[in-house]
Amino acid sequence: MTQPEAAPPRLRTGGRAGRAATRAASAHAQGPPYIERQIAPYELLDADALSLMESKADQILGEVGIEIRDDAEALQLFRAAGAVVDGLNVRFQPGQVRELCATAPTEFTQHARNPARSVQIGGNNVVLAPTYGSPFVRDLPGGRRYGTIADFQNFVKLAYSTPWLHHSGGTVCEPTDVAVNKRHLDMVYAHLRYGDKGFMGSVTAPQRAADSIEMARIAFGAEFVDSNCVILGNVNVNSPLVWDATMTGALKTYAAANQAAVVVPFILGGAMGPVTTAGAVAQAHAETMVGVALTQLVRPGAPVIYGNFLSSMALRSGSPTFGMPEPALGSLIVGQLARRVGLPLRCSGAFTSSKVPDGQAMAESTVSMMSALLCGANFILHSAGWLEGGLAMGYEKFMMDLDLCGAAHTYLKGVSLDDDQFALDAFNEVGPGKHFFGSQHTLRHYETAFYEPPLSDSNSFEQWRDAGETTSEQRAAVLVRETLANYEMPPMDEATDEALLDFMGRRKSEMTDQWY
Amino acid sequence: MTQPEAAPPRLRTGGRAGRAATRAASAHAQGPPYIERQIAPYELLDADALSLMESKADQILGEVGIEIRDDAEALQLFRAAGAVVDGLNVRFQPGQVRELCATAPTEFTQHARNPARSVQIGGNNVVLAPTYGSPFVRDLPGGRRYGTIADFQNFVKLAYSTPWLHHSGGTVCEPTDVAVNKRHLDMVYAHLRYGDKGFMGSVTAPQRAADSIEMARIAFGAEFVDSNCVILGNVNVNSPLVWDATMTGALKTYAAANQAAVVVPFILGGAMGPVTTAGAVAQAHAETMVGVALTQLVRPGAPVIYGNFLSSMALRSGSPTFGMPEPALGSLIVGQLARRVGLPLRCSGAFTSSKVPDGQAMAESTVSMMSALLCGANFILHSAGWLEGGLAMGYEKFMMDLDLCGAAHTYLKGVSLDDDQFALDAFNEVGPGKHFFGSQHTLRHYETAFYEPPLSDSNSFEQWRDAGETTSEQRAAVLVRETLANYEMPPMDEATDEALLDFMGRRKSEMTDQWY
Repeated sequence: MTQPEAAPPRLRTGGRAGRAATRAASAHAQGPPYIERQIAPYELLDADALSLMESKADQILGEVGIEIRDDAEALQLFRAAGAVVDGLNVRFQPGQVRELCATAPTEFTQHARNPARSVQIGGNNVVLAPTYGSPFVRDLPGGRRYGTIADFQNFVKLAYSTPWLHHSGGTVCEPTDVAVNKRHLDMVYAHLRYGDKGFMGSVTAPQRAADSIEMARIAFGAEFVDSNCVILGNVNVNSPLVWDATMTGALKTYAAANQAAVVVPFILGGAMGPVTTAGAVAQAHAETMVGVALTQLVRPGAPVIYGNFLSSMALRSGSPTFGMPEPALGSLIVGQLARRVGLPLRCSGAFTSSKVPDGQAMAESTVSMMSALLCGANFILHSAGWLEGGLAMGYEKFMMDLDLCGAAHTYLKGVSLDDDQFALDAFNEVGPGKHFFGSQHTLRHYETAFYEPPLSDSNSFEQWRDAGETTSEQRAAVLVRETLANYEMPPMDEATDEALLDFMGRRKSEMTDQWY
Repeated sequence: MTQPEAAPPRLRTGGRAGRAATRAASAHAQGPPYIERQIAPYELLDADALSLMESKADQILGEVGIEIRDDAEALQLFRAAGAVVDGLNVRFQPGQVRELCATAPTEFTQHARNPARSVQIGGNNVVLAPTYGSPFVRDLPGGRRYGTIADFQNFVKLAYSTPWLHHSGGTVCEPTDVAVNKRHLDMVYAHLRYGDKGFMGSVTAPQRAADSIEMARIAFGAEFVDSNCVILGNVNVNSPLVWDATMTGALKTYAAANQAAVVVPFILGGAMGPVTTAGAVAQAHAETMVGVALTQLVRPGAPVIYGNFLSSMALRSGSPTFGMPEPALGSLIVGQLARRVGLPLRCSGAFTSSKVPDGQAMAESTVSMMSALLCGANFILHSAGWLEGGLAMGYEKFMMDLDLCGAAHTYLKGVSLDDDQFALDAFNEVGPGKHFFGSQHTLRHYETAFYEPPLSDSNSFEQWRDAGETTSEQRAAVLVRETLANYEMPPMDEATDEALLDFMGRRKSEMTDQWY
C-alpha cells in the first residue's frame, strides 16, 4: 500500500458517455420546478457592517443622487414621493428609498404555461435560468457566428429538455436574422411554443415590453395576468447612477401590468463604478433600490426582483474579467443587503471571459456559480451557456454548465442527519476492514446516494482512452445533438397558438423592418 | 443600448498570454508564506447537530471499534490509556479518544529551509501544497506516462517558482525510475535542494520515515528538529476502521521525532464507508481521532494534523467521482469537527476524475477547492496538479490550478470596509453617467485592485483569435516550459549538500534495489 490516496477502487466497468447522454436527454420531466434550499446562505458581514454599507448607499443617494433621463413621469413620481428633484437629478433622504420599496412582495410565484413548472421566487427558493443577451453563438462543429432565431429556438428546447433549469430565460441569444423591432415577438413566441417553463420578455423599448405582455395575456388570459406574474423583464441601470428612458419605460410597463421587473445595475469595477468592492456594492444597492422604488410608485405591490451584476477588470489590459474572487465576495454582501430590504435576489451564474468552454471557462464559471449559490440568490440568470463575457452563447458550454446546475440541487439540500444516514447498522454489519459494497445500508441507498453529472467522465484511464479520449466539450457536443434530436414539442391549445401567431403577424405588418 | 450585460467595455488592448506567463514565472519571490484568512469558515451545522455527529463517532468507536494490525506497541499504548483491547480490536468509552487528543497543539510552525517560507499550520492560517501520490504524470507534449525523478524535480521547481503555493508537498509524483526502497531519499533531497519551502517525508515504511527525518536533521540540525517541526508525514487510515502497521509505524516515527503526522482516513463512500454523508463523516472523525490519539501517546504535545479525504462514487459504474457536491458538504462538517477538537485541519484541493485538464477537470476542481477554502482547512494538499482521481499529476493542470490558488489569496482576504474603500470621493468627483477610469480613487487603487490570474485570457475575441485561439491548457503548456526554463536553484550551504548526498549514498549502498 504505497499511495492509497491515488489508487481508487472500481466496482465494475462503467458506461460510455453516449449512454449517459441519452439518459440525460430523456430526463427533462424529472427535475423539480425549483430548488428549495436547506442550507443557509453564507453571511460574510455582521449587522454593523451591513448598516454601514446601507448608510453609504444612502450617502450616495443623498449627496450625488441618481439621474433619470428623458422620463418626466418617473421624475414626477419621485418628486411626489418626496425626493428632491433638480433637473434630471434625484436625491433622497437617508432611508427614504428603502421605505418606498416596502410595498414590494418578499416572495411571489411566476406562473409557467405548464403549471407544474411555475416557480416560486424569493424566500429559500432558487430558480436557475439560462444565459441572457449574447449576440453570438458558438458550437464545436460551427465555431462562433451571429445568433439566429433557429439558435434561439434551440436554446429554448435545450432549457426545456433539462431537469436542471427551472426557467426558459429571456434573450437566450440575439436572433440577429430577425429585424430588431420585430424579434421580440419571435422570441416570446419561441419561449411559449417550444418550452413550457417561465420566461422573460423584451425590455428594449416600452412598446416591445407591452407586446411581450400582450402575448402573455393571450397565452394565460388577460384577467389572470393582471393578478398574477407570468413574465419577467430584465432592466439594467445605466451605471453609474443613471436610469435612461428605455429602461424606466420597460420597468414601468412591467410594473403597471403587475409583472416583475428584474432591476440590475451593471457595474464593471473601475469603469461604471469604483474599483473597490465596498464602493461598488454600495453603489449597486443605491441604484437597485431606486429602480425597485419606481416599480412600487407605478403600482404598489407589483412583484420585483433585486438584481445584481458585479464584475472586475484586468486593469493592465482594460478587459473585463469574470469569475474572479472580488465579485464573488461582493455577491455575498449583495445577498445580505437584499435579504435586509426583503426582496427576492437575482444573481448571475456561470460567468467567464473565456472564448471557449475550456478549463478557464469552467473554473471561472464554477467560482461565479458557487458564489450565487452561497449568497442566497433566488433567481440565477446566466446559469448555463455563458462565454466570452456574455458576447457568445455556447452550445457545449450550456451542457457543461448543466452538470453544475444539477450539482446545485444536491448541494443546496445540505446533509441529512436522520438516524439512518449515520449507517450504524452498516458499521455493525461490515465491521473493520471490509467493504460496504454489499451492505444492507448501501443497497437501501444505492440508487439515490450520489449525484452523477451526465457529462463528467469518471471512468478509468483505459476506458476513457478506448472510448476515444474525449474532452467534456466533445461529449457535450454529442449531448447537444442528441438532446435536440430527441426533443418533443410540449402540447399547446390550437386556438392559443393561432391567436399568438395572429397577433405576431398583425404587429409585424404594422412595422417596417429596423436593423439597428 | 440593447443588451448592456453582453457588451463589456474595454480600456485598451490587452497583453498576450506570453507576457502574462513571463510575469508569473518571475514572481515566485513575491507570494506570502501562507494565507491568514480574514473571512470565517462556512458553518453548516449548529452545535446540537455537531454534538450528535460526535456522539455517533463515539458510538462507532464504542460498539464496532478500530482494528490495529501487526502493531503490538500501539495496542499496548491504547490498553495502557484505558481502551478496551480485544485481540486486534480497540474500543473506547464516549469522549475517551477526544481526551487523548487534548495534548496536541492547536497550531504550530512548520519550519522551512528558507525561514521566510516557514508556515503556520492551524488557527486562521491556510497553507496550499501540491498534489501528492500520483504514479503517472501527464503533459500536453508527451501525454500520460509513468512519473520519473526528473518529473518529481520538475514539480518541486514549479512549486518553488509560484507565489501561490506555500509548500513543496510530498510525493509530488512517484519517481518510478528509482527503486521503491530508495526513492524516498531522492524525493526528500529534491525537496531540500530544488526548493526552499516546507515539505513532507516518506511514510511507506517506518525506516523510510526515519531516513526522511534524518535528512531533515542534516539540513536543519538535530537539536533544532527535536524541538521544531520541519517535516510532515501523510499517513492514511485503512478505512474502514483499520490501522495497519505500515501507517502506525510511520505515524509513531514522526511523532517520536516531534514531527507532524497528517492523519487521513481515505473514505470513498459506498466502498470504505457508507454512501451517506453523515455516516462517512462520523466514521472519518472516529478514525482520525484514533490516529491523533496515538501520536499523543507516543509523544504528548507532538504536532499533528487532523486530515480528511472524502469522496463519492458513480454507483452505476462503480467509479470514484471527485469534485461532487456530497463531499463538498461533508468537508464543511469535517471542518467544524476539527475546530471543536482543536486541531489543525488538512483537506484536499483540486480534485477531479477527468483524465485531461478540460472543462470537467476545472469545474470539479473548483467545487472541491472552494469547499476546502470554505470549510476552514489549514493545510490544503492536492491544491495543484491532480488529474484522474489522483492517478496522474498534470503539468498543465498544475499551472491551471495555480490560477485558483492565487484567487484563494484574494478571496480569503474578504472585503475591506475602510472608509476609502467606499470611494465617496470618486462618486462626488465622477457623478452620474461618467466613467471611473480616470478618477483619483481609481488611480490610487489601480495597481492592486483586482486579482489577475496569469493563465486566464480575458482579451477580446479578436485579440484571442489573432493570438492563435489558444485554450487554457495550451497556454499552461507554454507557462510550464517558461517557468522551468527560468528556474534558478535556491542557494544551499555546500557542506549541507555534501552531507545530504553522503547520507543518501550510504543508505543506498546498504540496500538492494526493490522494484515493488
